[in-house]
Amino acid sequence: MHETEADVVVLGAGPAGEVAAGQLAEGGLDVVLVEDRLVGGECSFWGCMPSKALLRPVELLAEIARVPGVRELVTGTPDPQVLLDRRDEVIHDLDDSGQLPWLDDRGIRLERGFGRIVADRTIEVSDVDAEAPRLRITARRAVVVAVGTVPAFPPVDGLQEAAGWTNREGTTADEVPESLVVVGGGPIGSELSLAWSSLGAKVTLLEAAPQLLSKEEPFAGAQVADGLREHGVDVRVGVELASATRLPDGRVSITLEGGESIEAAELMVAAGRAPSTGALGLDAVGIAPDDHGYLQTDAHLLVGGTDWLYAVGDVNGRALLTHVGKRQSRVMAQHVLGDADAALAPDELDGPRSPRVTFTEPQVAAVGYTLQAAKDAGIDAVAIDVPSDGNAGASFIGKNAGGTTRFVIDPDAGILVGATFTGAGIAEQLHAATIAVAGRVPLDVLDRATPAFPTRTETWLRLMDKRPR
Amino acid sequence: MHETEADVVVLGAGPAGEVAAGQLAEGGLDVVLVEDRLVGGECSFWGCMPSKALLRPVELLAEIARVPGVRELVTGTPDPQVLLDRRDEVIHDLDDSGQLPWLDDRGIRLERGFGRIVADRTIEVSDVDAEAPRLRITARRAVVVAVGTVPAFPPVDGLQEAAGWTNREGTTADEVPESLVVVGGGPIGSELSLAWSSLGAKVTLLEAAPQLLSKEEPFAGAQVADGLREHGVDVRVGVELASATRLPDGRVSITLEGGESIEAAELMVAAGRAPSTGALGLDAVGIAPDDHGYLQTDAHLLVGGTDWLYAVGDVNGRALLTHVGKRQSRVMAQHVLGDADAALAPDELDGPRSPRVTFTEPQVAAVGYTLQAAKDAGIDAVAIDVPSDGNAGASFIGKNAGGTTRFVIDPDAGILVGATFTGAGIAEQLHAATIAVAGRVPLDVLDRATPAFPTRTETWLRLMDKRPR
Repeated sequence: MHETEADVVVLGAGPAGEVAAGQLAEGGLDVVLVEDRLVGGECSFWGCMPSKALLRPVELLAEIARVPGVRELVTGTPDPQVLLDRRDEVIHDLDDSGQLPWLDDRGIRLERGFGRIVADRTIEVSDVDAEAPRLRITARRAVVVAVGTVPAFPPVDGLQEAAGWTNREGTTADEVPESLVVVGGGPIGSELSLAWSSLGAKVTLLEAAPQLLSKEEPFAGAQVADGLREHGVDVRVGVELASATRLPDGRVSITLEGGESIEAAELMVAAGRAPSTGALGLDAVGIAPDDHGYLQTDAHLLVGGTDWLYAVGDVNGRALLTHVGKRQSRVMAQHVLGDADAALAPDELDGPRSPRVTFTEPQVAAVGYTLQAAKDAGIDAVAIDVPSDGNAGASFIGKNAGGTTRFVIDPDAGILVGATFTGAGIAEQLHAATIAVAGRVPLDVLDRATPAFPTRTETWLRLMDKRPR
Repeated sequence: MHETEADVVVLGAGPAGEVAAGQLAEGGLDVVLVEDRLVGGECSFWGCMPSKALLRPVELLAEIARVPGVRELVTGTPDPQVLLDRRDEVIHDLDDSGQLPWLDDRGIRLERGFGRIVADRTIEVSDVDAEAPRLRITARRAVVVAVGTVPAFPPVDGLQEAAGWTNREGTTADEVPESLVVVGGGPIGSELSLAWSSLGAKVTLLEAAPQLLSKEEPFAGAQVADGLREHGVDVRVGVELASATRLPDGRVSITLEGGESIEAAELMVAAGRAPSTGALGLDAVGIAPDDHGYLQTDAHLLVGGTDWLYAVGDVNGRALLTHVGKRQSRVMAQHVLGDADAALAPDELDGPRSPRVTFTEPQVAAVGYTLQAAKDAGIDAVAIDVPSDGNAGASFIGKNAGGTTRFVIDPDAGILVGATFTGAGIAEQLHAATIAVAGRVPLDVLDRATPAFPTRTETWLRLMDKRPR
């Protein structure tokens, strides 16, 4: 076994791991990055990026239908192969070589293989199919765990065995199944239901909760369900699965509580995630993940009272979102680089309050509290609801596309504590709310931050008019 | 002559006048609104709205060309008649009856005609073609002047006589001229050059300043010029006009300093605006406008030390923008309704710092200072430039469409004091910067206001990375 040293070893080269390695290397440290699959991670290859590639044409076609003069020029529907080719372009045909110059430029050493903690500040790397490690790395300063999550399977009889697809296949499959059952109506399940329906599959989406996107405002889940139905998806909420079976002919049969069964050519499970901490060797250093397998971190992203083991990104369970992981990596890197004060802020938009977007039709973009979450947090909150398509800007973009913009106010503090935007192409509007919420910008200041006419952001005027005074 | 009384008389029913009347009436006052043309004003009928109706298809077609799977479905170019019909739909065929129920619902009395101040708190209204007034209105509380501006003509020999078009015809013409010379490369001239070029006219745009959009960042003007040229417009900056003549055959000839002459089927002048204060009767109450004809206002929007005469919108010259006028009307209305503290804030984004958007390709959206303006204001400002199409979100929207996002920082104060965004469909991104600038949100807070992945607003990450620390 070879041995080497580095200032920092980063386990996992998804977005959080890449930013971690990049920030540390730019700060002058010698960094080894260990990755057993692709540099770029779940997000680049099996998550955000390919799903957005498949969804952008859906969004654009919906908008075209709303614009006279242009809609008359469009005939037919997209060629699925062209859409899949474009998806393959975005995921570089599952080839990460395009990412490597970025690492090289920063002097980051990439070790392909599976990394395991064997002692304090000590990692062993195995080739993926090998039993014995081939390399031992001693970290002079820190080890950063950024290994992300894998699909979780609800405890339904036969489900894991029958599931041909998770997000992996749901983002990379090369053929369109005749029919597809999607289990799980969160962001991944909702987005991929829309994507595969647009590609021609007959999609059934099953969600156990009473609404899709169950962590978001009820109107958001309802509008996404309506939108999916308009795009041909059979959406069923509040349904419990009893069992699933792969049939001899290769098809899948799902039986619901109550006895109804659904057959389809393929089954995708998108019903939650589980952290990849089981094989990390944490017991070797006396660290135990929480009951769900996540690594508990302090505000510096340090794990378990150590001064050398950090966890960033999905694996710490704070919020399973690429941008949140990247933010954590920035904070962590500053801390490793010697800024002892570098920490997530006390009022950080962490966990469920993090900004988040689902790229369905309508899109759902939210930050901070939902109304109910604010009340649950003890805030005497008030909601102001505005139609997202109810102003002059919406005569031109997203015309009659519906959607709701909800501002959740803390009248006592005189600030915005949450916002949810649903509507056509509305994701880019979120950041204004993120700044207002993160900055605790007083409502009276938001009042004089005038949105430009005729942009759709004039929804903010209603906030001004209806704000508690 | 009839006589009547009201709490407030509002002169001019453009956006500022409408909001003024609406806010005052909703506050319980008896309001008379006087308008000699259309309720909705320049913006609704001859400005922002019809120009955006004409420009939206241009923007959308540019985006379609960037999206595989969709672009293959489009053949041909839009039928100009369909685009003009859509424009007519937006301007309701120059019929304002659709606006009237909104007034009725609020009990606002509309008097059609020309209003003139004849004494303190006293207005006389004449029919447009009549010499003698038909109605005298005494305002118990206030008179609000919101009469806006009209096109101004630079002192070029023959120009005003030769100009068949101003923004009026440039937004409402029913036929596409074979060729069109546009004088003035500000927002109106740039937008309408693009619109008429897209409709099939051969457009030449003449600007005396060294760049289009001369009040914006130099890169913005340069990119808009490039965009216009790509769309077939002959853009010429730094050119001085010597004279203009309407030829006997109805065409127009423009001679430039230096002798070159340009002939075209039509000439549009969009070279500035002048306030409509000349015929207001201001001398009857001892009020004199400034040298440019604008009514000078204090922070309450009161004119000339009076306690009854307010001026809102373009006519006070603070910033000739619909949203700015509407904002002023809100402040003014609160003041009239009894809130003595209601005033534009000391740090209001007033005048050239107001948020502003030009809907060309690329769009230009800006707020606060340009780099030069910040330096001129004595700020030791630093600019951070980011490609608007350089992140993951821009793989999907505005791909390779170019554009620049500039953040102008005041390092001493640790805040953002200006931002300019150029790029495809980027107008909706402005409001985040407007909140950051208006709220003087510390850079360290902006650092933790994480933009969602993969939205194009991840440009803000670069601000975080490069902020002075």
